[in-house]
Amino acid sequence: MRRRFFLGAGLAVASPALLQGCALPAPASAATAPTGTGDLGVVVQRARGALSVVNTSSRTLLSEVTGLGDLSHASMVFSRDGASAYVFGRDGALTKVNLLACRIEARVMQAGNSIGGAISQDGRLVAAQNYAPGGVKVFDAQTLAPVADIPAEFAPGKRSRVVGLADLPGQRFIFSLFDADAIWIADVSQRSQPSVLKLDGIGRQPYDALITPDGRHYIAGLFGEDGLALVDLWDEVPHARRILAGYGRGEQALPVYKMPHLRGWAVAGRHAYLPAIGRHEVLVVDTATWQEVGRIPVAGQPVFVMAQPDGRQVWVNFAIPDYDRVQVIDTQSRRIVRTLWPGKAVLHMEFTPRGEAVWISSRDANRVSVIDTRRFETLALLDIDSPSGVFFTSRAARMGF
Amino acid sequence: MRRRFFLGAGLAVASPALLQGCALPAPASAATAPTGTGDLGVVVQRARGALSVVNTSSRTLLSEVTGLGDLSHASMVFSRDGASAYVFGRDGALTKVNLLACRIEARVMQAGNSIGGAISQDGRLVAAQNYAPGGVKVFDAQTLAPVADIPAEFAPGKRSRVVGLADLPGQRFIFSLFDADAIWIADVSQRSQPSVLKLDGIGRQPYDALITPDGRHYIAGLFGEDGLALVDLWDEVPHARRILAGYGRGEQALPVYKMPHLRGWAVAGRHAYLPAIGRHEVLVVDTATWQEVGRIPVAGQPVFVMAQPDGRQVWVNFAIPDYDRVQVIDTQSRRIVRTLWPGKAVLHMEFTPRGEAVWISSRDANRVSVIDTRRFETLALLDIDSPSGVFFTSRAARMGF
Repeated sequence: MRRRFFLGAGLAVASPALLQGCALPAPASAATAPTGTGDLGVVVQRARGALSVVNTSSRTLLSEVTGLGDLSHASMVFSRDGASAYVFGRDGALTKVNLLACRIEARVMQAGNSIGGAISQDGRLVAAQNYAPGGVKVFDAQTLAPVADIPAEFAPGKRSRVVGLADLPGQRFIFSLFDADAIWIADVSQRSQPSVLKLDGIGRQPYDALITPDGRHYIAGLFGEDGLALVDLWDEVPHARRILAGYGRGEQALPVYKMPHLRGWAVAGRHAYLPAIGRHEVLVVDTATWQEVGRIPVAGQPVFVMAQPDGRQVWVNFAIPDYDRVQVIDTQSRRIVRTLWPGKAVLHMEFTPRGEAVWISSRDANRVSVIDTRRFETLALLDIDSPSGVFFTSRAARMGF
Repeated sequence: MRRRFFLGAGLAVASPALLQGCALPAPASAATAPTGTGDLGVVVQRARGALSVVNTSSRTLLSEVTGLGDLSHASMVFSRDGASAYVFGRDGALTKVNLLACRIEARVMQAGNSIGGAISQDGRLVAAQNYAPGGVKVFDAQTLAPVADIPAEFAPGKRSRVVGLADLPGQRFIFSLFDADAIWIADVSQRSQPSVLKLDGIGRQPYDALITPDGRHYIAGLFGEDGLALVDLWDEVPHARRILAGYGRGEQALPVYKMPHLRGWAVAGRHAYLPAIGRHEVLVVDTATWQEVGRIPVAGQPVFVMAQPDGRQVWVNFAIPDYDRVQVIDTQSRRIVRTLWPGKAVLHMEFTPRGEAVWISSRDANRVSVIDTRRFETLALLDIDSPSGVFFTSRAARMGF
């Protein structure tokens, strides 16, 4: 295993202005008081392998951290106190970044090809899902010391790529095996001896998954067939069942320009809003029956379909060639109430914790737009080099994020 | 390092151990890094007019802040960054406390008798609901400078006591007028000229209210009649309608030892769990039809009925004489799965952000218990003088808290 620790390395500051933003909280006086981390966030600069630290109250850039490696497909989770981000790089690196100190605190090359991760309910364990070598590795959240290695070996000598990793209550993680048509649930509460519950034959080629906001339902999208696999984690003995099987049957398949990100699927009230693969539609699904109850035509192939925190509106971005647009669906009327053009190559969106604004990254416009979710006014524009993912620290308090 | 900060009013440190906890974040080095505010909380010491600042990761006391006045019925909300608490005292004081600096930053006596407050969706406005003089006062969250005064004058010269205040999307607040049988919605986005939508005849004597987690439904309990008033805030023109009317009709009313706190009502999945007033029961209500669908017998008159973040369990405490107990309801079977005795005079409960633990205050045992929500083990006991309310900073990211 290639493991390298670069403790204390990686701090870089781009300008005096950023340096100021990067300064530590000053000692308390009548004039200045220490500030918290509840309104911090991180924007990935995918081309530069860097992170921009932002503040969602002042809607400003605070600082920059470089040296993160290949962030061409990066995601992150946050420490329980909101001060640190755990960044999962495409190159297999897991990096712990202190957002207040603007500094890399620990970094480990934990795989050859990684696709994201999760943090345990109690914030003590960080897990990475890997394509190569296929499996899940679990680390101590404080130090990034290795805790457990769970190879996704589904047959002697055969390891699957792992996708759709999410935290479950207790020190448990759930994930899908693309090459094994399986969903596994790992319990790492006995650190040296993780136990794994294996659900086989869940459907062909699960390629991503999500967990509902209450942590009850795990849903994996299937690449190898129409439909999805659903696990009710409140069952005595969890099992997978097929839902929405054949929802595209009989229709002419469209070329798929970009696979939708299921992690962004929206659950608003009693309905889930799903990107239809390859079609210019968002599917509406009743979460009681898991039957399709409607389709909403949209401007292109949806990539992220995300509910506002109040579930009143659902925001959608698109694959090429329609990736200069964002559409807003009213969940009551199921109609599009607004189309926005925030800049070319919209890659991601993130709502502020209580949803008064949404931050939208436009890669080719080198810009992040902050939009008022009620009036659709642009509240701020931030110049950021090739921005992709936008992540706010409020994720630390949510399951499945 | 031991720093003594006795800045401004109100800072007091109880012991060397606490003094250390009260220290500011040290400058970053390889060994120490600045920490965040996502895992901080506050416990009210009701008798001493003081606050204990706690950390929910280490499950320890960090520091103490005194000089808060009459906290016999205190509540609080948190700043957007999680660093400050806005404490509403019974005596009409509104106090802004910086939890990192362990210091009172601002304090105003804004009424003669106050019963709680709310913070706007964007974190810029703090509102207090007052009994005397009856009305709502709105303050700048940064400075506590007055922004708007909304007297609850429902007839010439007649002002109502105000209860059930909650934030709504936009810079709006909703509240109930006990003496006027009314619900008002105030929009403070034009700071100098708040506009108020008044709903009259909503039912006799609304005494408290809650807003559902998605911010859609506002429900006020009625003291003067059986039933509740419900407002669907997504209606074009919001109006109040009566629900569960006559749910206690024909039954012998029991003496009510303590009015339940409606703010604690639990919405888990599709059902709301409500304390039955005066009865040893928790009511189960379908949130689609707002009809009662079940009753669960419990050990006493319920006061707080609170759902775990995942909605799997509902925790209940009780009025005298049963206030030494807490019961746990499984929402799937609707049965009590555990009875706990955490100490005499259980006043409040608060879940950690992702629900792995619950903190329970036992006033007469001078103790806060930290309980594992899966195994019901006691994870920590904290000695705190007459603890009442327990509030965690993760509330800052939630509507209605």
